[in-house]
Amino acid sequence: MNKVQPKTLSGFMELLPNEQVLFNQMVDKIRSSYEKFGFLPIDTPVIESSEVLLAKAGGETEKQVYNFTKGDSNLTLRFDLTVPLAKYVAEYYNQITFPFRRYQIGKVYRGERAQRGRYREFYQCDIDIIGDGTLNIINDAEIPAVMYETFKSLGLENFSIHINNRKILNGLFESVNVKEKSVDIMRTIDKIEKIGKETLIAIFKDDYKIQDESINTIINFIEINGTTDEKLEKLENLKIDNELYKKGVEELKEVVKYIRLFNIPDEAFEIDLSIARGLDYYTGTVYETFLNDYKSIGSICSGGRYNDLAEYYTDKELPGVGMSIGLTRLFFILNDIGLITADKKSISDVLVISMVEDLNKAIEVANELRNAGIKTEIYFDNKKIKAKFKYADRLNIPYVIVIGEDEIKSGLLTIKNMQEGTQEKLEIEKIIDKFKII
Amino acid sequence: MNKVQPKTLSGFMELLPNEQVLFNQMVDKIRSSYEKFGFLPIDTPVIESSEVLLAKAGGETEKQVYNFTKGDSNLTLRFDLTVPLAKYVAEYYNQITFPFRRYQIGKVYRGERAQRGRYREFYQCDIDIIGDGTLNIINDAEIPAVMYETFKSLGLENFSIHINNRKILNGLFESVNVKEKSVDIMRTIDKIEKIGKETLIAIFKDDYKIQDESINTIINFIEINGTTDEKLEKLENLKIDNELYKKGVEELKEVVKYIRLFNIPDEAFEIDLSIARGLDYYTGTVYETFLNDYKSIGSICSGGRYNDLAEYYTDKELPGVGMSIGLTRLFFILNDIGLITADKKSISDVLVISMVEDLNKAIEVANELRNAGIKTEIYFDNKKIKAKFKYADRLNIPYVIVIGEDEIKSGLLTIKNMQEGTQEKLEIEKIIDKFKII
Repeated sequence: MNKVQPKTLSGFMELLPNEQVLFNQMVDKIRSSYEKFGFLPIDTPVIESSEVLLAKAGGETEKQVYNFTKGDSNLTLRFDLTVPLAKYVAEYYNQITFPFRRYQIGKVYRGERAQRGRYREFYQCDIDIIGDGTLNIINDAEIPAVMYETFKSLGLENFSIHINNRKILNGLFESVNVKEKSVDIMRTIDKIEKIGKETLIAIFKDDYKIQDESINTIINFIEINGTTDEKLEKLENLKIDNELYKKGVEELKEVVKYIRLFNIPDEAFEIDLSIARGLDYYTGTVYETFLNDYKSIGSICSGGRYNDLAEYYTDKELPGVGMSIGLTRLFFILNDIGLITADKKSISDVLVISMVEDLNKAIEVANELRNAGIKTEIYFDNKKIKAKFKYADRLNIPYVIVIGEDEIKSGLLTIKNMQEGTQEKLEIEKIIDKFKII
Repeated sequence: MNKVQPKTLSGFMELLPNEQVLFNQMVDKIRSSYEKFGFLPIDTPVIESSEVLLAKAGGETEKQVYNFTKGDSNLTLRFDLTVPLAKYVAEYYNQITFPFRRYQIGKVYRGERAQRGRYREFYQCDIDIIGDGTLNIINDAEIPAVMYETFKSLGLENFSIHINNRKILNGLFESVNVKEKSVDIMRTIDKIEKIGKETLIAIFKDDYKIQDESINTIINFIEINGTTDEKLEKLENLKIDNELYKKGVEELKEVVKYIRLFNIPDEAFEIDLSIARGLDYYTGTVYETFLNDYKSIGSICSGGRYNDLAEYYTDKELPGVGMSIGLTRLFFILNDIGLITADKKSISDVLVISMVEDLNKAIEVANELRNAGIKTEIYFDNKKIKAKFKYADRLNIPYVIVIGEDEIKSGLLTIKNMQEGTQEKLEIEKIIDKFKII
């Protein structure tokens, strides 16, 4: 028979079982952290009607999506979990209890150029809180609190959640009358480290025709530094006479206050006035998260506050705030730099090996272990003892129970600690107790 | 702005959060049962190259699949989890440890005509054990043992795993020289309850030209009944002189022996000589699972033994055995007939409500509860007390902690049991202890 080459598409992560175990542990920890704060799960289809999914999209998004027809239907694979959330909230508005705190962990699809660490199919892990008409600013502090808890549960230590408020930037540009050029100016400011302050001032003057006094204000703003409290003070001291700016600073102060109440230490977050995030979508608080030792990776968890989640589907005003982890890329990065911390490297707690042909005793022992909640596997194949131990070794199974003539007669089972190479003879009840302690 | 109607495609299950909580609990229990037997997780892409995914397909499958092009690539959405497993095992053959015990829980796609209880996107929950060259018959008993454990964990009581062996049917038809007509004959036999025995005999005689003696043998075979052991005895007593038949009966006896060793009670399984399952794929043991009180639903979990998993991709002989639960349909059915048993109907264990504007105490209490592993939500909105309780009620949150002036002063928090309507005043430590017991 002619064989087809078994090949996975490039840009699609597929893990070997040992790695999949680690990946799933990360998913479990993220889910568990989200649920600890009472977020509710939803699960939307991977396929939606193109009309629904692309109601808002355009430009780059539209070019990247996977879309196709089936019968008369124009279909698209979801490219994020935010648009499906908007559809969901608009569709089931009358059945949803607000504020709607939802999480979703699922695969999304973008036909990007495949490259190292970039995926066409990847998991997003989103949390959002959606209000009906209004949404309290405390939610803007709880979202990073959830993410702090999440990253701690993943064993990450040296990370920082950067926080800003879009109203501050918008207000600043409004106050110096360059609101309509704000996107370009932000991009230029982003280059300050490369081009230097003098060049930046020259560009402001020559290209954007900004007045000297306004340039001063912008430069003073850019140069704000210090501790979180010092930054907040300096933001107020700039005396920018703009309502939006003032509102932004006030919101940022509130968010910082509550973040501290949620017990996030000052080392784990900072005010970062340079982050803006997709200028047309977010309207208040914005977040990016960095691994301090690996800043070049970019943000590993981002999000923010938006005024209106579902304006393309409904007249209801649905403000929200949320953050998202791109898990597939994060797993790739953490694996690459050796930062994956595993609680367990195997599924099975123990492998039962029989030295005698009759497997009755092995099955009986496995039944008892499983009834006690211990994940137990029996090696059934009639191989040499060495092959059986090699199996446990390759699967990282931490304990092996050996059942031979002696064990059957005495009722004392040999249990071997695979890591330490030690073994002892114990009654089944003692073995069960042992696993309860581990 | 013109609004797009927010609409989910028909044939795609999308649940409200309260139902999603129940669905996820089912997934958790299935996964936990699979892992208890040491099955390893894998996660293959939803999209694969059409050449790979359709290497074996044809006919109905090919008509139903979602396929499309992206750039130069011909792509297909997976329509089951078996073909991706075959690809996976062939692709990573050198890195896999055999016997390979894997589970996969994921969505698959079939563009079937949408109808009640039939889905175009649905979860499959598969377990398979793949051998390298050979695979011990005990595995054929362990697979239904895992499923027995799984269904028990889902709270199902009155179900039966039906077991047969394809070699028995094939051997029987071989012995009476009607092997090439076996598919048609099986279909005719299936109608026996409708058409009656006499008509069946007439069809055997007139349409299939089967000799009287052979018709007798087939009829004797069809009429085999009794307990599991009686059936096994009758199968042997038929004295059919065919090697395949004898091998099949011997395998079935072995499987029954081990199923009992795995502690599956006789009420939970039965030999069912009428099940055949897709005549060209399975080569030995076959399974179907029925809810005894709802047989018309059909099988809720099926599978079997196959000689060669990945013959389209590799020359390696990879025998396997597995079963699959179609979870989306099962959830729909169980929900419909009221058989979903929930451990918990909410995510949050407790909702913290503040009667005072300052939320500091509420946040502090929530922090402590979460640190103790209790899933805790704070109600932030400045609504009337009634609205706050209604929120807990609609989300099925079992406990509410109320924090007012009194509570802040005394340190005794009011905790209300929402189901029973009772409340008491307790210190936070006592509340934490209380949740540890619940």
